[in-house]
Amino acid sequence: MPTPLALSLGDPAGVGPELIGAAWHARQAQGLAPFMAVGGARLLQAAAATRGIALPVQIITDPAQAADVFPHALPVLGDADGDYTPGAPSRDGALLALASLNHAAALARDGLAGAIVTGPIAKSHLAAVGFAYPGQTECVADACGVAADDAVMMLAGPTLRTVPITVHVALSAVPPMLTSDLILRRAAITAAALERDFGIAAPRLAIAALNPHAGEDGRMGHEDAAIIAPAVERLRAMGIDATGPHPADAMFAPRSRASFDVAICMYHDQALIPLKALDFDNGVNTTLGLPVIRTSPDHGTAFAIAGRGLADPGATIAAIRMAGQCAARRAAQKANA
Amino acid sequence: MPTPLALSLGDPAGVGPELIGAAWHARQAQGLAPFMAVGGARLLQAAAATRGIALPVQIITDPAQAADVFPHALPVLGDADGDYTPGAPSRDGALLALASLNHAAALARDGLAGAIVTGPIAKSHLAAVGFAYPGQTECVADACGVAADDAVMMLAGPTLRTVPITVHVALSAVPPMLTSDLILRRAAITAAALERDFGIAAPRLAIAALNPHAGEDGRMGHEDAAIIAPAVERLRAMGIDATGPHPADAMFAPRSRASFDVAICMYHDQALIPLKALDFDNGVNTTLGLPVIRTSPDHGTAFAIAGRGLADPGATIAAIRMAGQCAARRAAQKANA
Repeated sequence: MPTPLALSLGDPAGVGPELIGAAWHARQAQGLAPFMAVGGARLLQAAAATRGIALPVQIITDPAQAADVFPHALPVLGDADGDYTPGAPSRDGALLALASLNHAAALARDGLAGAIVTGPIAKSHLAAVGFAYPGQTECVADACGVAADDAVMMLAGPTLRTVPITVHVALSAVPPMLTSDLILRRAAITAAALERDFGIAAPRLAIAALNPHAGEDGRMGHEDAAIIAPAVERLRAMGIDATGPHPADAMFAPRSRASFDVAICMYHDQALIPLKALDFDNGVNTTLGLPVIRTSPDHGTAFAIAGRGLADPGATIAAIRMAGQCAARRAAQKANA
Repeated sequence: MPTPLALSLGDPAGVGPELIGAAWHARQAQGLAPFMAVGGARLLQAAAATRGIALPVQIITDPAQAADVFPHALPVLGDADGDYTPGAPSRDGALLALASLNHAAALARDGLAGAIVTGPIAKSHLAAVGFAYPGQTECVADACGVAADDAVMMLAGPTLRTVPITVHVALSAVPPMLTSDLILRRAAITAAALERDFGIAAPRLAIAALNPHAGEDGRMGHEDAAIIAPAVERLRAMGIDATGPHPADAMFAPRSRASFDVAICMYHDQALIPLKALDFDNGVNTTLGLPVIRTSPDHGTAFAIAGRGLADPGATIAAIRMAGQCAARRAAQKANA
């Protein structure tokens, strides 16, 4: 039996649960690998009902049962559950979301799930019930015993992959945080993951400049020449196909995009502006550098439209598909080893 | 006779001259208003020849002759000219580019041209022959007696318009430069220009945040709450339809783009990444807040592909079309006044 993917529920009051139901209904059309939800059988049915979807669910007690159940019902591992009101986050909902996330991460870590696909949470609500991480990425990294610095966030859409070197910090904090070592470390993790999990034999990394026009010979900032260019040189010396620093505005134009497999960006919006402009409804957030595969739809809880049938399942389906493909590559590597 | 548009040559060794010829050939198919080149008759013909275009030119001595000539030949005002080698910028070429720019700006200022469309220059080469401005925008502003701070750069493509509040400065210099006054002044100039020159009765301005997630209640930077939000409030108090600060990654997604007429951005790459990702070959750089209309293709000299028939004339044609449309609106307003 293939090892199933584990889907955490996300915040029950957000769009996460309803999109799990929508993805299960699309499993055949989209060719999705078998997956199970971790908890929430009753609330998943109720969430699906708000979209007019009749969702058959079957509670299982062992992940090994998931693949047999998957063709005719959504397998739900365990009986953790709750009531919920779409758009109205609650303390009980946050506790359930946290339990589902922790359980799913442990399953992946222990090899009982081929990957974890995390549903959207509201960090402020989870923090109120004891969640001590900046985001799910760091939580999953910790569950695997990996330092948060070595868990690299990659955003991937149909037309573009981007990695922000710095993530959730003020823009003014970005320039002092950048070092050649940091760029080198995260870019090297990215290159290794594209090769191992994405089947790209010699990944091409385009490294973005920090300043406009890549600093224009130091007239607009020194970091591109002093910090980023040396990191590119060191990556090349390691045999990685890295180029740059490239002026960040031109590198996301169509012809330029075709010349690389991933854009290594210096800050959050530099990575996310082009991705969301081009691939808004299909963006996947994936964590590289972990012993487990982890993906997530690149959107939030969207409390405002939860339960109204408006949320687009594209990103959830894309996240499940990517998790399945990456897990299959790892399984094949293990079989061949 | 309609007042013609004045096209400056740009650097003769770049793609500017060849694109003028390509645009003249497209004048009927694209419905372009009459334009004249300022100088360069011989070099324009030679540049067109590198694209396999036979370009009829006719030297004129008075802009008033341009409209009669335009249907059957490219009108060229004056006999300034030079030889050139594509891709090999020279001191003589820079001098000619500068003379053409200054002459074209003076024609627009004096009402002898309806607008100026500037060709691409290489700032470092022009600086070597005495050009003392950061860019053509500031040069044209100075010719009109307008402070550079009141000349606002807008980038416009078929799907998006963006205005960067700060432009050619290091990223680390952006946060300390931002003030509510600066945002207010440039946003108000933008709103007035969209109404006057672009025919948008009540322009909708979306103001971007500086920090990721618009600072997330101060956890990632204070500028969005302390500087940008008050500017938005003051714009609204002036009767301008301004919203924000919006998280910059989400605001360029398709559904969000449809909700505004222009995105007011805090720095160069925030404005130019989405524009070039979406509208690379058709981006127009236009200067708002001047007594004259000024547009430009949003690309550089592209020395590497000059003379090879590869440069796309889309942005030049778009810049000429926009200049003609804005000039026509101003002429109609003058006639009605």
